[in-house]
Amino acid sequence: MTNIYNFSAGPAVLPKEVLAQAAAEMLDWHGSGMSVMEMSHRGPEFISIYRQAEADLRELLAVPDNYKILFMQGGGLSQNAVIPMNLLGREGATIDFIQTGSWSSKSIKEAARYANVNVAASAKDNGYRFVPPQSAWNLTPGAAYLHLCTNETIDGVEIGYVPDAHQHTTIVADMSSHILSRPVDVSKYGLIFGGAQKNIGPAGVTVVIVREDLIGKALPYCPSAFDFKNVADNESMYNTPPTYGIYIAGLVFQWLKRQGGVAEMERRNIEKAKLLYAALDADDFYQNRVQPEYRSRMNVPFYLRDESKNEAFLAGAKARGLLQLKGHKSVGGMRASIYNAMPLEGVQALVDYLNEFAGR
Amino acid sequence: MTNIYNFSAGPAVLPKEVLAQAAAEMLDWHGSGMSVMEMSHRGPEFISIYRQAEADLRELLAVPDNYKILFMQGGGLSQNAVIPMNLLGREGATIDFIQTGSWSSKSIKEAARYANVNVAASAKDNGYRFVPPQSAWNLTPGAAYLHLCTNETIDGVEIGYVPDAHQHTTIVADMSSHILSRPVDVSKYGLIFGGAQKNIGPAGVTVVIVREDLIGKALPYCPSAFDFKNVADNESMYNTPPTYGIYIAGLVFQWLKRQGGVAEMERRNIEKAKLLYAALDADDFYQNRVQPEYRSRMNVPFYLRDESKNEAFLAGAKARGLLQLKGHKSVGGMRASIYNAMPLEGVQALVDYLNEFAGR
Repeated sequence: MTNIYNFSAGPAVLPKEVLAQAAAEMLDWHGSGMSVMEMSHRGPEFISIYRQAEADLRELLAVPDNYKILFMQGGGLSQNAVIPMNLLGREGATIDFIQTGSWSSKSIKEAARYANVNVAASAKDNGYRFVPPQSAWNLTPGAAYLHLCTNETIDGVEIGYVPDAHQHTTIVADMSSHILSRPVDVSKYGLIFGGAQKNIGPAGVTVVIVREDLIGKALPYCPSAFDFKNVADNESMYNTPPTYGIYIAGLVFQWLKRQGGVAEMERRNIEKAKLLYAALDADDFYQNRVQPEYRSRMNVPFYLRDESKNEAFLAGAKARGLLQLKGHKSVGGMRASIYNAMPLEGVQALVDYLNEFAGR
Repeated sequence: MTNIYNFSAGPAVLPKEVLAQAAAEMLDWHGSGMSVMEMSHRGPEFISIYRQAEADLRELLAVPDNYKILFMQGGGLSQNAVIPMNLLGREGATIDFIQTGSWSSKSIKEAARYANVNVAASAKDNGYRFVPPQSAWNLTPGAAYLHLCTNETIDGVEIGYVPDAHQHTTIVADMSSHILSRPVDVSKYGLIFGGAQKNIGPAGVTVVIVREDLIGKALPYCPSAFDFKNVADNESMYNTPPTYGIYIAGLVFQWLKRQGGVAEMERRNIEKAKLLYAALDADDFYQNRVQPEYRSRMNVPFYLRDESKNEAFLAGAKARGLLQLKGHKSVGGMRASIYNAMPLEGVQALVDYLNEFAGR
């Protein structure tokens, strides 16, 4: 076993216990003689795996009874089209957006193909270093919904509060890269979605948590496999679901419960993020450009003051088993993603290297 | 290890060697220190896995250079919408269909939401026991394309020839449940697609093989994640692909190559199918209702003459480790799916049981 710490933004590190269990069960799940990959999605074995995963996620996030949990395909990016198709009610209705980084920008661009898009507030001119204050959100009366990306994976900006706007509009939240990292009051949102490949499991599973009254008004051209009503009415089995990915997600949910749930995850994530940001802020050798109150606990982009040292930094990191620290190509620099499955020891190893490389 | 034979129609049996390799590599792929599930899809490790899988599939099916191979999400069923969105050119153009069973019927229903649908020939009145002769196919001049399901998983009907229609129209073929089971002349088709969960790998991966000139005319409301042009231009990484599923598919492709490729698979599949159909035809205790020349080599539905014995048959089969033989709920009876990964020994065990239960 090569010993490394994997700071990839996603697909990303998974708990070792989960991977070990998956390996042990690969050829024979619970004496069934079958791999989970080989099971009919309609058989009692997989149905039990599915229902346990659904129940555990519902428990972890305290999802109210009037919300459906859907396990879909297509990734978070596909939801940028699938959600307007399902929630608009009529083509050309208005969606409000808060533009806080690369992912909300992608959502805006895709939604504009189906909806009248209103960018109610934007931090673009600022280089995405903060969340525009709620008082400046210019929301549209009668809009179909307000879309937020509550954690911008590329820009490292996190919305850590429930927006007041929930009182008078439906909030749709892209929580792909921080779902399950902290408690969330689901009842304040109309829909929460996320690609699995950060805090949930392998790529290829997309979780959608949606209030029941929002289901059932898909536009005529919404593919039936992506109509929330079909998915909800068939326990995510209107078509064959990504069974193995759901199984791994279920193992992650069980692992989270053993760790103490989302509240304990939040405690650990605060500790890890504090440690890492303190090392970045210690002097001006490194720089994180996000205003402190909006800094993400999950995705920590940073720059070397002297960018000519970038390659040396990455080579040294790799030599120490600190992997996938290169920043997204659109913003450059470095990025450390420190999801639930990243242990404190991994962040400590990174901090030690940051200090060493800075000659502290 | 519980010793069983799994006759599920999909998700379905996978080669034991593939599962064993996946288990061995689960925590540390090739000394990388990472599971394949944990790898960034943009990193060199996964890119190498992806390119090998693509190259191996291209080799196995002798895919010409002017065809793209796309690894998508959403399953075969989603392609019933995605293909019209990509290939129609304009809403309301005509698609011809040959209706040979449940899956082509689903494709017809979904396509009618986007296109003018012409059922050029149908075996519905016949109960899907044959493929309508080509001379009776009433094709539309100027249709966008002709859609076929070349193997009907539920009805057990297979089109084992290249339709003459390729000479004057574009053929789109749903090969989900028999792709890689026999050689196919890809050049005679405009597009071939299949959900992975029969002969390719785990559910959640959808393979699309499409001639390049058909790419780039998606309808305006086609979600960008499902626009073939975006997928093709980005090596299936316009959004995060189902990385682990692609890895398993790649292991299956390698296994197929070690076995002798698709020609050897066809030899084995003919042998297995002959053995099974002979047992069903031995007397009138069992019945397969499909005309012999259209019987599927992959999916073998059958009925007990005395259906009151169904439960006893299934219980006895289960006791012998012969699993998932119950027929699809829409047609009843039994079904044995005998994909590439089903060894001859599995079919022999089933045949032994068929004979025993029939008191032969």
